[in-house]
Amino acid sequence: MYPLTFNYGQIAVKETKAAQKIAKTMDTNTKIIDLSTLKDIFNQTSALINQDIPITSKFTASILVPFRNAIFLSIAVAYASTFSADKIFYGAHGSDAIFYPDCRREFYKAFEKAAQLGTNQNIAIYAPYINKKKADLIKAGIELNVPLELTWSCYHNGEKHCGQCEACINRKRAFYEARITDPTEYKK
Amino acid sequence: MYPLTFNYGQIAVKETKAAQKIAKTMDTNTKIIDLSTLKDIFNQTSALINQDIPITSKFTASILVPFRNAIFLSIAVAYASTFSADKIFYGAHGSDAIFYPDCRREFYKAFEKAAQLGTNQNIAIYAPYINKKKADLIKAGIELNVPLELTWSCYHNGEKHCGQCEACINRKRAFYEARITDPTEYKK
Repeated sequence: MYPLTFNYGQIAVKETKAAQKIAKTMDTNTKIIDLSTLKDIFNQTSALINQDIPITSKFTASILVPFRNAIFLSIAVAYASTFSADKIFYGAHGSDAIFYPDCRREFYKAFEKAAQLGTNQNIAIYAPYINKKKADLIKAGIELNVPLELTWSCYHNGEKHCGQCEACINRKRAFYEARITDPTEYKK
Repeated sequence: MYPLTFNYGQIAVKETKAAQKIAKTMDTNTKIIDLSTLKDIFNQTSALINQDIPITSKFTASILVPFRNAIFLSIAVAYASTFSADKIFYGAHGSDAIFYPDCRREFYKAFEKAAQLGTNQNIAIYAPYINKKKADLIKAGIELNVPLELTWSCYHNGEKHCGQCEACINRKRAFYEARITDPTEYKK
């Protein structure tokens, strides 16, 4: 298992540290790919990168980072290719598919085809949670003993989850729907 | 026109400076995207990045940087998407298609589909030289007044083109085939 996490200039860079902490509980490490220079591109439109664009509590185009996951997947394919790994696991889930086009099954299946043609290798992309909701992810996490208290969702980079941005609202709702006690400390 | 050039940790980083010089002759600038941290991934297998892997005069797997152009294209799509540009021009050419899977028409057409699905935008990828040989590129360059003497092909980063690596050999041959006097100063 070769976990990958990306720094793409996001304000909430804490999520990369959270990923590393979680990897360590599984006796592994995540490689953190530093793409922070992409800030220069995404700064133009995205509130997740540009401090001057307000972060909203509902989905708006301003929290979309266009084609971001495709950049991540292309690097994952390149990385896999360097040591002939042939399976890539992609964390997109169904609750995001409505809003984020690069979280849809149609997208990653098309990307998988491009990956095979572009490497001449039989690389498969799996997205095991593509048809599951965020609440299902939490249930799966409990079953798999994932330390959910170490995960980070907030778009801000504060001491605690803000509790008010779109990601925090979705996180709260998912714990509620899953009927699992939310271990997160929210600011509000 | 929004030219893009990539620093991906290649030894021949001079090529990014060459691209900038050429852009300036056209009264524009190329954005140089700094992906030099990818060196850590490509270092494993590629002679274009790792100084300890010998650079050969013929194509071998060691001069392939797997899925590199897909990473470049994914960033181009993200960039285009931030200001609703809908045409991307990709510099792959036919002489490379035999050796580099990500220079083939099948690849970039599959990638174009993934780009459309992953952005929900009607982005088109054009590769005007995909069916042309390197010699044809030189002829087109002459017609378009491209300052060919400013272009850089060599995989090394020397004062002059080495004249012996695969890229220099291909460059020499292409000028010969095009019956155009080669303005390049080669070391050998």
